[in-house]
Amino acid sequence: MPTAAHIPALNLEADVVELTRDICDIESVSGNEKQLADAIESALKQYAHLEVIRDGDAIVARTNLGRASRVVIAGHIDTVPVANNLPVQMLSMEREQVLFGRGTVDMKAGVAVQLKLAATVSEPVSDVTWIFYDHEEVEATKNGLGRLARNRPDLLEASFAVLCEPTSAQVEGGCNGTMRVDLGFNGVKAHSARPWMGKNAIHGAAAALSVLANYAPTEVDVDGLVYRESLNVVLINGGIATNVIPDDCVVTVNYRFAPSKTAADAEAHLREVFSGIPDMTFNVVDLAEGARPGLDRPEAQAFVAATQTVARPKYGWTDVARFSALGIPAVNFGPGDPSKAHADDEAVPVGQIYACEKALRAWLSVG
Amino acid sequence: MPTAAHIPALNLEADVVELTRDICDIESVSGNEKQLADAIESALKQYAHLEVIRDGDAIVARTNLGRASRVVIAGHIDTVPVANNLPVQMLSMEREQVLFGRGTVDMKAGVAVQLKLAATVSEPVSDVTWIFYDHEEVEATKNGLGRLARNRPDLLEASFAVLCEPTSAQVEGGCNGTMRVDLGFNGVKAHSARPWMGKNAIHGAAAALSVLANYAPTEVDVDGLVYRESLNVVLINGGIATNVIPDDCVVTVNYRFAPSKTAADAEAHLREVFSGIPDMTFNVVDLAEGARPGLDRPEAQAFVAATQTVARPKYGWTDVARFSALGIPAVNFGPGDPSKAHADDEAVPVGQIYACEKALRAWLSVG
Repeated sequence: MPTAAHIPALNLEADVVELTRDICDIESVSGNEKQLADAIESALKQYAHLEVIRDGDAIVARTNLGRASRVVIAGHIDTVPVANNLPVQMLSMEREQVLFGRGTVDMKAGVAVQLKLAATVSEPVSDVTWIFYDHEEVEATKNGLGRLARNRPDLLEASFAVLCEPTSAQVEGGCNGTMRVDLGFNGVKAHSARPWMGKNAIHGAAAALSVLANYAPTEVDVDGLVYRESLNVVLINGGIATNVIPDDCVVTVNYRFAPSKTAADAEAHLREVFSGIPDMTFNVVDLAEGARPGLDRPEAQAFVAATQTVARPKYGWTDVARFSALGIPAVNFGPGDPSKAHADDEAVPVGQIYACEKALRAWLSVG
Repeated sequence: MPTAAHIPALNLEADVVELTRDICDIESVSGNEKQLADAIESALKQYAHLEVIRDGDAIVARTNLGRASRVVIAGHIDTVPVANNLPVQMLSMEREQVLFGRGTVDMKAGVAVQLKLAATVSEPVSDVTWIFYDHEEVEATKNGLGRLARNRPDLLEASFAVLCEPTSAQVEGGCNGTMRVDLGFNGVKAHSARPWMGKNAIHGAAAALSVLANYAPTEVDVDGLVYRESLNVVLINGGIATNVIPDDCVVTVNYRFAPSKTAADAEAHLREVFSGIPDMTFNVVDLAEGARPGLDRPEAQAFVAATQTVARPKYGWTDVARFSALGIPAVNFGPGDPSKAHADDEAVPVGQIYACEKALRAWLSVG
């Protein structure tokens, strides 16, 4: 068994920017979350107002004040691989100070805000379930929040959920669904000097590419937010040698669809889009429904009001969809520009960390 | 220095099918021709009517009878890699006997015919330069015939040339030219959830694929033979990950063009074909002109008559183009179906080996 000496001490009552630094510097690339999970568990256990539960490298801490409602505030503690950008540095940019380094945006600044509020807001107006989970940046089957939903669905019960993914400290509601399809085209190999002996699979793909290049994506209003859809080829591969007529071409398509559409709706739409293409196979390789923003729900409206922001749609798929699937309205709200997530120059403005801390504290205090 | 004991003995006066077997069983994948070249050199040196010259692993043997004309009869001694198909086997197919194994078609049966005739036709009606060369199945810069043309251009002087490449024992005149072009499309990377932040390079390629799929190749009459042209995508590659809008797509195109066209003609035609495609780069990566069949020349007409065959166009590029570039009319004539060349089930009908031996012997005897 590890002794306490191996567990880094975290001061959850420190300045939230310092706390962000401390947890960023505990490297926790997906699969290597144990040390940070240990530190979080150990630090949270010092607070009598919290019940702390562990499942693998996921830590759940909750108040049990008997409030009329309960909210979940969740974040993942893993990151994508480090790109020579740890330990984090405090840099002064032209107009603001930033914390620069892996995890600052996605999403340890959000986790730091969670930790500080979990420790210091001991009497929230709703009961709060704080969730810190593992394996968000890898294949969905490993996702720690998904595992919790299977092992301890009771821990996710709530009337509203906030995911502290980066949103530049604005409320981003719901998320688009995502679907990946491999369009396959077969041909017959032949020497390229005598192509009429074969059939060119890549020429067969031309009609599908033409459909894609000319596709006009729609915008869909869902609960008052406008979701922009998109349909793109993300990969194409065909041919085996420069003197052989290719007998195989695969076009991988990514469809991002509004959260008002079901998986079946999305698949039916794509099948319709490509219905005119001859000799094509259609193979769904990934499909995840989006999440409605739920901004018509009073809990969500109260959150937007308390945080004094204007809600926007989220385009990327996030784990809010897991709450949506459980019937729990959920929004994204956290520090950092999402377009800097995973970037080698990942950096979060410190002003956004403070803004998120302040907004969430206000919401938990006034309801 | 190797001793004679290391050099396999070849009996050039044996049955030509047995001789084919013997030289096929001396493995000579490109780069490993030395042992076979040694055997050929050693065997040819036993004949007083031949002057034998070596350049690397190419062997030249020629008569010097002071005839009014000289012809070249050439073949390469290397093969593509063995596919568990050596030693060769004699198989009885439904209607014919075949020699099965690597090199039987491309082109050791042709080389065996050359060797037997070099040894046994000591008084040909024209002087003959027999050429056995290395490195035909690899990059053009290594080609043994090309090296001979640079080192000893005098050895290639002739009024007519025959290349014993497989043609199913029919005369195939000239060859199409070949040109390979990379069409490049650039875009701007973005997360696939927000594609409007980027530019999809594969969508950019759609217009070019459409042009290719709809291209109608022409047929061109050259010296009485009809050459069928073709234009095909042979490779396409684009994209780096399923959640990233691709910023790069390369479409590799192979154009086979009639031997009446120059390299400049071919390039101008392709640039015209793709002239309407926006934001495309056009990079010629390989370009070799074809060879006119030269069937309007009396030497070629005499060859067709003596071999009692009907001339057809050759579509694949062969080394006859090297003779054509030197102003020497050249045809392909050899045993084996060219579509079996390089195949794992490469096999030559023994009847075609005998037919080629007989036809060439007749031509060398009667003029």
